[in-house]
Order: sequence, then structure tokens, then C-alpha cells
Amino acid sequence: MEKIQPMIGIIMGSSSDLKHMEAAAEFLIKMDIPFEMNVVSAHRTPDLMFEYAKNAEARGLKVIIAGAGGAAHLPGMVASLTILPVIGVPIKSSNSIDGWDSVLSILQMPGGVPVATVALNGSLNAGILAAQIIGTAQETVKMKLYEYKQELLSKVMEAREGMK
Amino acid sequence: MEKIQPMIGIIMGSSSDLKHMEAAAEFLIKMDIPFEMNVVSAHRTPDLMFEYAKNAEARGLKVIIAGAGGAAHLPGMVASLTILPVIGVPIKSSNSIDGWDSVLSILQMPGGVPVATVALNGSLNAGILAAQIIGTAQETVKMKLYEYKQELLSKVMEAREGMK
Amino acid sequence: MEKIQPMIGIIMGSSSDLKHMEAAAEFLIKMDIPFEMNVVSAHRTPDLMFEYAKNAEARGLKVIIAGAGGAAHLPGMVASLTILPVIGVPIKSSNSIDGWDSVLSILQMPGGVPVATVALNGSLNAGILAAQIIGTAQETVKMKLYEYKQELLSKVMEAREGMK
Amino acid sequence: MEKIQPMIGIIMGSSSDLKHMEAAAEFLIKMDIPFEMNVVSAHRTPDLMFEYAKNAEARGLKVIIAGAGGAAHLPGMVASLTILPVIGVPIKSSNSIDGWDSVLSILQMPGGVPVATVALNGSLNAGILAAQIIGTAQETVKMKLYEYKQELLSKVMEAREGMK
Amino acid sequence: MEKIQPMIGIIMGSSSDLKHMEAAAEFLIKMDIPFEMNVVSAHRTPDLMFEYAKNAEARGLKVIIAGAGGAAHLPGMVASLTILPVIGVPIKSSNSIDGWDSVLSILQMPGGVPVATVALNGSLNAGILAAQIIGTAQETVKMKLYEYKQELLSKVMEAREGMK
Amino acid sequence: MEKIQPMIGIIMGSSSDLKHMEAAAEFLIKMDIPFEMNVVSAHRTPDLMFEYAKNAEARGLKVIIAGAGGAAHLPGMVASLTILPVIGVPIKSSNSIDGWDSVLSILQMPGGVPVATVALNGSLNAGILAAQIIGTAQETVKMKLYEYKQELLSKVMEAREGMK
Amino acid sequence: MEKIQPMIGIIMGSSSDLKHMEAAAEFLIKMDIPFEMNVVSAHRTPDLMFEYAKNAEARGLKVIIAGAGGAAHLPGMVASLTILPVIGVPIKSSNSIDGWDSVLSILQMPGGVPVATVALNGSLNAGILAAQIIGTAQETVKMKLYEYKQELLSKVMEAREGMK
Amino acid sequence: MEKIQPMIGIIMGSSSDLKHMEAAAEFLIKMDIPFEMNVVSAHRTPDLMFEYAKNAEARGLKVIIAGAGGAAHLPGMVASLTILPVIGVPIKSSNSIDGWDSVLSILQMPGGVPVATVALNGSLNAGILAAQIIGTAQETVKMKLYEYKQELLSKVMEAREGMK
Repeated sequence: MEKIQPMIGIIMGSSSDLKHMEAAAEFLIKMDIPFEMNVVSAHRTPDLMFEYAKNAEARGLKVIIAGAGGAAHLPGMVASLTILPVIGVPIKSSNSIDGWDSVLSILQMPGGVPVATVALNGSLNAGILAAQIIGTAQETVKMKLYEYKQELLSKVMEAREGMK
Repeated sequence: MEKIQPMIGIIMGSSSDLKHMEAAAEFLIKMDIPFEMNVVSAHRTPDLMFEYAKNAEARGLKVIIAGAGGAAHLPGMVASLTILPVIGVPIKSSNSIDGWDSVLSILQMPGGVPVATVALNGSLNAGILAAQIIGTAQETVKMKLYEYKQELLSKVMEAREGMK
Repeated sequence: MEKIQPMIGIIMGSSSDLKHMEAAAEFLIKMDIPFEMNVVSAHRTPDLMFEYAKNAEARGLKVIIAGAGGAAHLPGMVASLTILPVIGVPIKSSNSIDGWDSVLSILQMPGGVPVATVALNGSLNAGILAAQIIGTAQETVKMKLYEYKQELLSKVMEAREGMK
Repeated sequence: MEKIQPMIGIIMGSSSDLKHMEAAAEFLIKMDIPFEMNVVSAHRTPDLMFEYAKNAEARGLKVIIAGAGGAAHLPGMVASLTILPVIGVPIKSSNSIDGWDSVLSILQMPGGVPVATVALNGSLNAGILAAQIIGTAQETVKMKLYEYKQELLSKVMEAREGMK
Repeated sequence: MEKIQPMIGIIMGSSSDLKHMEAAAEFLIKMDIPFEMNVVSAHRTPDLMFEYAKNAEARGLKVIIAGAGGAAHLPGMVASLTILPVIGVPIKSSNSIDGWDSVLSILQMPGGVPVATVALNGSLNAGILAAQIIGTAQETVKMKLYEYKQELLSKVMEAREGMK
Repeated sequence: MEKIQPMIGIIMGSSSDLKHMEAAAEFLIKMDIPFEMNVVSAHRTPDLMFEYAKNAEARGLKVIIAGAGGAAHLPGMVASLTILPVIGVPIKSSNSIDGWDSVLSILQMPGGVPVATVALNGSLNAGILAAQIIGTAQETVKMKLYEYKQELLSKVMEAREGMK
Repeated sequence: MEKIQPMIGIIMGSSSDLKHMEAAAEFLIKMDIPFEMNVVSAHRTPDLMFEYAKNAEARGLKVIIAGAGGAAHLPGMVASLTILPVIGVPIKSSNSIDGWDSVLSILQMPGGVPVATVALNGSLNAGILAAQIIGTAQETVKMKLYEYKQELLSKVMEAREGMK
Repeated sequence: MEKIQPMIGIIMGSSSDLKHMEAAAEFLIKMDIPFEMNVVSAHRTPDLMFEYAKNAEARGLKVIIAGAGGAAHLPGMVASLTILPVIGVPIKSSNSIDGWDSVLSILQMPGGVPVATVALNGSLNAGILAAQIIGTAQETVKMKLYEYKQELLSKVMEAREGMK
């Protein structure tokens, strides 16, 4: 993906989650925010996850987006190992009970270690949230976010035209 | 509360939610991050909410923390009106069905308008997450967050001593 | 749609909800009650929604039917902005957790701001309920509703014949 | 209760539900809308319920509010026997599973027979909704509803003052 | 169906439920227990339901099996109108929220009016339960039930042979 | 308890369930139906349960009422070992997850082995259902059930008087 | 299957569950742990189940893996009859309510009789857990488990390569 | 606690969980199985958890019992770092949504990394399960487990005496 210093790290537990996480990457491209994307599994590669999470801030990342399904420990464990904001994307994977396990095991973090949780399969919103965080300190991103809001509005106005 | 330019806006639908939101404020004080705190109701003061959300960025706020219970529309509606990151705190209010309504009506935002949702009654984590966002661009906050992580660790180590 | 003064406003968050809301429109046609139908999104066009809801009564509408899915804020926000009865139709959209989010974020409104909620994907019943409300003051609609009840009965009686 | 022709009929399955239904009555008093209030049980007095529901419209009622808990059949059965709008109030009675049974057995009516469902234990909102329905044809009620909306706003503004 | 005096009445809210109720009928045929089968809708033909339920015992029926989905009121309302045992079959109909509404609105009857509820879509078990009830007073049915238990056993033993 | 040949066997997994099962016994006393009452645990005394269930019919019992909570296997296992109708009472015991485990592990029996499930903590209804089953073949019980229905009605009529 | 003394007994309620249980068998083959596999139904062959569970330890088995769906009593009942560790696999069978009944009726065992429950349809993990138990006393199995952990790691590392 | 080489490691995320985990320790004492007990938090002391889990097998432990509540990651993360059997105890902590989050985030582990999950707040059963695992290779423990089963039986028999 990006060669220059990435600001956002997108990670997921398995390559099969890629299709659920792509929308985050696409939004960051649209916003011109450099990012990196990797498979890091809490349960199958715990050492790699530790290393990734512990070094993320020093490596220059600003935000981590982590997607996982079932007993989804990746976002919360990464959050326990970094002071960066961590955005969790609950994935309705094939082994999930209708997505409830994914949602609850990411959302219900104990006091002290937050995960910013978005909707089930909501990786687009994870990308937007990451951009909003970058936008708090970077005017060009903020401007692009205003444009994006305008786009959302325009699509509805077009749909209204189509219904007349 | 704070006199100087607030960075974080904490809002809630009713003054009865104050006890559920105080932990966020306390954490921001500990981090030396200026904030403001208000009652703004999506359902009882929609105009006020509109005005608050639309002006938030221009007024210099960086992050909004919104707590609400039941059919909790405050965080999502604010998010629809600003490009600032909005953190939603689902509150298990007396009219809530075990908190499920609060959680789902904040978490399950449609693609395009994210709310960074924390655990049920998780306002402490909302405060921490707001600080982490500020920390992405402000070194002193980042340092304080590292200290806080150390504190969490120390409390566990003391508990371990106590059990011996 | 209708040229004459509409009595019912049917709104929905996205044109993709149209297929879930058509049954309401069809019932109103059958009852000879004029209506209008529009896409109005709480999250993508909040200003439009505000304007729509605030002007609805002055424009002569008697009842609003609002359909939405996921974190469904449209019916409740419209209800916060008008004194007209608002009927909410929870839609099991693709991003919904089995419809629970849609149901709870429409049904569980706080004291002061009711939404008359019907069953998941129950837009036919929303249309009937709107007609019943019009019927409280309009004899011709009342008569048509008695005929409709007779129709429901007749269909069952025919099914009974078919089973003999 | 009211001596003059009641416009709203409030019914509930048991006298123990009275405490959960009083808020509806109080709101109607505030709106000067005449009403009647009765115990009518779908399961213990089915004949009485039939008679009540079938005669309601002829007796001059405009709206029925029915509260019930557990396998709550009263609102739906009344709706099957009248063309009046029926507002259902799910009650979290002692024999209910956290209110879910009450909510689902009132909300999930089949196509053809709507019940306007409000929040769990939401009898205040049932009263407001009934007034809104009356208000569609009666200007004085409409005015009172605008005043009530103003009241809701004022309470929030006072709470805001209190927090300064 | 049966010409001779039926002992069991199988009813359902719609002819579309027939496919879900057939297994009950087939089991009763196997047990040589005469039965009748009808569409009776609580919500669309409430008078017919009343008449059916009130006359059932006098007409010589011993047990009623009632299947319904969504806000399923048929079994409970029939039970309120007869002293015969009523067996309820929750049906996962197309308008049901994963079957939960069907189950809860049949199972959670208030004290005084029981419905013998079987599993979701469990009409075979409704048929067996009806036969067991008849068997409490009729030796030939009891014998057939012992044979049926033997059949269940035999099928497992054959499956075991097949796995060797 | 009863000295004469019992017709109904009431069993429960623990003596702590007694308070939840007493209503069944009281109703049977009221109906003059002889019964016996015992602690039989599926998990702690499986052999005793086997013996109890296998001999129940030969010992002259007509119906078994079994109450259990949590992973509640007693009703279903007894049903697998007898051809008598088995009524299951889900108990919301202290180790239960809001009663859901008790309900589902009794209700959701596989095809071939029914349990007539009543509401959570619904032992009164279990007693009534048992009497209704006895009543299918015993006229005196049937008459008493008609009297009981009349009682239910009278209590509502009295409550109505009290509200005037 | 295996001719030599089996260490693990895999049982399931029906031959239709075989496809859900195969992964356990395959893992045990990979670990070179001898096992046997049988259909044993709690509800259709209770005597066989009793015999199987009571003799398991004497026959030399070390661990029992039991899979079942719906009101899943097999794992818990076997656990009540043996002192061997019993691993329960909740199966999302066709008659299950989204798997919740299977999970709760296996997991929520009362104090005194544990079942080691794995994820819904998690028979692979049941096989691994059985191997881990054998590994507590058998060095060769322990070594193979370390190799398996390495395999899990390698697959992730390969997926990472593929994403570059 | 124990001075000699512990066989079982009991860990929990916070000293406030101690009251929920004591039953496991008491059972192991009764079985004469040496154990150790510690606070180890996945989220507050991730390094300590890593070290604990990675060294557990080399330190001579045979089984790990881990209790946690809310988004409960301790059991699953420990399981990802050891080849020992890990028993997970979901705790209904104050920040839990009725225990569902605790249960699902422990139970629903992905294929490859099992956690042997027991009932909500089921630490007694965790202790028994640990003893059963030790018992697979140690005859004296096996004998004590047979005695314990006898005890369970005796308590029921006494309760039966008390009811006569």
C-alpha cells in the first residue's frame, strides 16, 4: 500500500476479514491519509500483536483500526498495549452468533482501556472516524470531511429527484 | 467549569445523567484538558442540539462526548451535524431495557456517520478516549496517558501484594 | 404522487427503503387518503429533516409515517420537532442486527416524545394506523376501514373453504 | 372519573397495572381531554373485552389505550375488534422476562391489524400520542400540545442553568 | 379430513401456516386419533375464534392445538375461552423476529390461563403431546405411544450401525 | 402429602425450588386431584430420576410436572423416559441468566419428545394444565375448572367495582 | 474407526450432527490420539446414554466430547453420570433458535456437574481441548500441540506475505 | 496459599473478582490438589499476563482457571499463549450487560484456540473440571471425585427425607 509514513494502522485477525475492512482503506485513500494494512491475530500470533501494538506509537501511527469477529480480542488487547486511540470494528464472521459476540467483546471494555467501537461490519465508519481524529489537528483533512458530508447530502437530494 | 477555551464538549440529555457522566470530566481534569459540560436534549431541545452541534467545531471544540439512554439519539444526531469525532456513552437509564436500547441506538449508526461508542455506562472510557484523540497531536497529553497506563498497572501489582 | 393537499407524509432515510414502505402508500391509495412520499435522512440531511418536521403541521399534514433501520433516529427526531402523531416503521435493513436495533431505537422513546411504533417491516400497518387516525374525524375513511376489516375476514373464510 | 362523553378509553388487564397507567390519565387531564379508565382482561374476561372493543366506536370513543404485560394480548385483540386506533403500552410486570415478552407480543402484530406501540412502561407517551391524534382534528388540543413541547424545553433550560 | 367425532382440533391463523402444522396431523393419523383442522385467526376472525373456542368442549373435542407466529395471540385467547388443554405451537413466520416474538407471546401466559407450549415450529411434538393427553385415559393410544418410543430408539440404533 | 393413589407427580431438582413449585400443589388440592411431590435431580441423582420416570406410568401417575432452572434437563429427560405428558416449569433460579437458559433448555425439545412448557416461574399454570388434562376424562374436574374460570372473572369484576 | 483402546469418546445425538463433529475427529487423528465415535441420543436412547456414560471411565476413556443442538441435554446428562471431563459442543441445528438454546442448555450447568463448553459449532476446539487434557500427562501429545500452535502462527505469517 | 508445586493456576482480572472465584479454590483444597491464585489483568497488566501464560507449562502447572467479566479477554488470551487446558469463568461483574458479554467473549473463541467455558459465575464447576482433568492421570483424585458425586447424591436424598 502506502510507501510514505502511515498515520493509520488497519489490522484484522485473518485475511478472510479483508473484504469486511476494505471500506476503511478506501475512505482513507479518498481523504489522502497514508495508512498500512496487516493481518495480526490476537489468538494465533499474540507475540506479533504485542510487538505491533507496543511499537505503533513510536513508529509514528496516530490511530489503529482493528477488526475482529466472534470472541473478538484484537481491538481490546491492542488498546491495552498502546496509548493511541483504537477503533474496533465488530465483524459478523461465519463463527459468530448473529454478531452479538463480536459486538459485546469489543464494546464492553473495562474502565481504563477504551475501544472506540463502530457498528457491526462498520469499517467505512471506522475509516471516517480515523479521519475525523486526524482532522482534529490537520486542516486539510477537516476540509475533506466537510466535502464528504456534502456528498452524503447530495446523494439524498438526487434520490429525492428520482422519486418525483 | 473551565473558563479557558474548552477542547472537549461533554453533553447529556438530562441532568439525571450527570452521575453517569462525571467520570469523563474527572479524567479530563486529571489530564489537564479543558472541557465544558452541558445538558442538551435531542428530543426536548432539538434546536439547541442543532445549534450546539453545528457550531462546535467553529467554537474550537476538538471532540464531543455525548451520553444518552433508551432510544438514544443525541450522539448520532450530533455526529450528523459536525465533522468532529463524537464519542457516545450508552446510559442504562431507568427507562432502558437492560441497556440494550441505549447500546444499539448509539452503536449501529449507518455508513457515513460514525459514533465512537464505549461500554454501557462507560463514561470514564469516553474521557480517556477523548484524551487519546487530543494526545495524537499534543505531546504533554500523550505523556500523561503513559503515566495513567502505569497507574493501572500499579493498582494490579498492589492487589497482588495484598493477596499474598 | 398526489397533487391535492396531502394528509399523510411518508418519509424514509434512503431510496433503498422504498420497497419496505410501499405497502403504506398502497393502503392509503385504497383508502382515498392523499399523501406524499419522500426520502429524508436524519443522518445525511439533518437540516432537511428539521425543516420537513417543523413545517409539516403548517403545511397541512395530519400524520407522519417514518421508516428507518439500524440506529433509526428519523421517527424519533421528527417526533421531537412536531406535534403531529408520528408512526415509526422499524426496517430490517442490511446493516441491522436482526432488526433489534431498528426496533429499539424507534420504540424506546423517552417520556414526552412518543413514536407510534409498528412491527418490524410493518409498513402496511403504518398505513392502516394512519387511516385509523384520519378516520377518528372523517366518516368516509371510517367506513372504508370497516370494509377493510370485512375483507380480512373474507380471506380467512375463503382459506377455510379451500381446506375442506 | 370523567362524567361527560369520554374520547379516550384507557384499559388494563389488572388493577395492579394501575400504577403503570396513571401517567396517561394525568396527561389527558392536563390536556382537558375526557377519558374513561377500566380493568378489562383479555385472558380472564374475554367476553367483556369483546363487548368493550366492539362497542367502543359506537359509544363515541376516538382512541383506545391498552396496557398489558407478559404474553400481552389485550392491545392486539382489542385492535382486531375495532377500527379505532389502539395504543399499546407494554408493561414490565412481575411475570415478564425483563419486558421482552410484553414488548414483542404487543408490537409484532400481523399485517392488517396495527397496534401503535410505545416504550416499555411508556404510558405517559401513550397519553401524549392519544392527545396528538385528537389534536389532528381539534385546534385547542393542538395548542396545548405546543405548550407542552415548550414545557419540555423549559425544563432542560432550567437544568442547564442549574449546572452553571 | 376425519368424518367421525374429532378428539383434537388443530387450528392456525393462516393457510400459509399449514406446512408448519402438518406434522401434528400426520402423527395423529398414525395414532388413529380423529381430528379436525381449520384456519381460525385471532386477529382477522375474532368472532369465529370466540365461537370455536367456546364450543370446542361441548362439540366433544378433548385437546386444541393452535399454531401462530409473530404477536401470536391465537393459543392464549383460545385458552382464555375453554377449559380444554390448549397446546401452542410458535411458528417462525416471515414477519417474526427470529421466532422470539412467536415463542414469548405464546409461552408467557399469566397465572390462571396456561398454554402448553412446544418448541419453535414444533408441531410434531404438539401432535405427540395431544396423543399423550388422550393416552392418559385410553389404553390403545398408550400402547401406540410405547411403540413410537421404540421407533425413535430403533432409528438411532440403525444410525449407529451405519457409522461402523 | 396425599395417601391415596396420586394422579400427578410434581418433581423439582432441589428443595430450594419448593417455593417456586408450591402453587401447582395448591391448585391440585383445590381441584381435589391427588398428587405427590418430590425432589429428583437430573444431574445429582440421575439413577433416581431414571427409576422415577420409568415407573411413573406403571405406578398409576397420569401427568408429571417437573420444575428446573439454568441448564434445566429434568423435564426433558423425564419426557424421554415415559409416555406420560410431562409439564415443564422453567424456574428463574439464582444461577440463571435472566431465565433464558431455563426457558430454552425446557422448551426447545427435539421432534419426538415433547415437554408442555409453561411460563417462567409459572407453576400455577402447570397445576391448571395438569388438571385440564385430568379433566379430559373426568367430569368432576371439568366442572371445577369451569368454576375456576368463573373465579378469575369475578376477581376482575370486583377490581372494576373498586375503580369506580 | 480406531481399533486400539480409544482415549476419547466422541458422541452426538443424531447422525445428522456428524458433519458438525468431524473436525474433532480429524484433529485427534492429527494428534495420534485414539478415539471412538458414536450416535448416542439423550432423548431417544436414554438407556444407551446411561450405559455409555456410566461405563466410559471403566472402559478406559479419558475424555468425552458430546455434541448436541436445541434443548441439548446430552453433554450435561453424560457429565452427571461420569467423573471424566466432558466437553460440550453446542450445535446450531435446524430446530435451534439461532444457536442460543444449544449454547445455554449446555453451558449453564448447575454447581457440581461441569461441562467444558466450546463455541457454537466449535468441534475443532473440542478436539484440541481433549488433546490438551491428554497432553497434561503425555509428553508426546504436548509436543504435537506446540507444533500445532506453530502451524497457526505460520498460516497468519503466510497471509501477511500474500497481502504485501 | 500452597507452598508445594502448584498444579492449577487460578487467575482473575481484579481483586474484586476474588469472591466469585473462591469456590474453585475451596474445591481444589477438598481434592488435595495444590494450586496458586493471582490477580493478572489482560487489559491492565498485559505483559504480566504474557509472562504468566507463556511460563505456566514450564513452571509445572497442568491447568489454568481464568475468571473475567465484561469484554473478558483474559481466558482467551492466556489460551493463545499456552498449550495447557484453560478453563474460563464468565463473571457477571458490575459493568456487564446481564452477563452476556462475559459469556460470549469467553465462549466464542475461534477455531484453533479453545477455552473450556463453564456457567456464568460458575467457579465451583471450574474447580471440579480442573480436578477431573488431573483425575484423568491420577487415581487418588479420581477416587475423591467419585466420593464427591456420592455427596451430591446424599444431599438430594436428605432433602427428600425432609419433605416427607
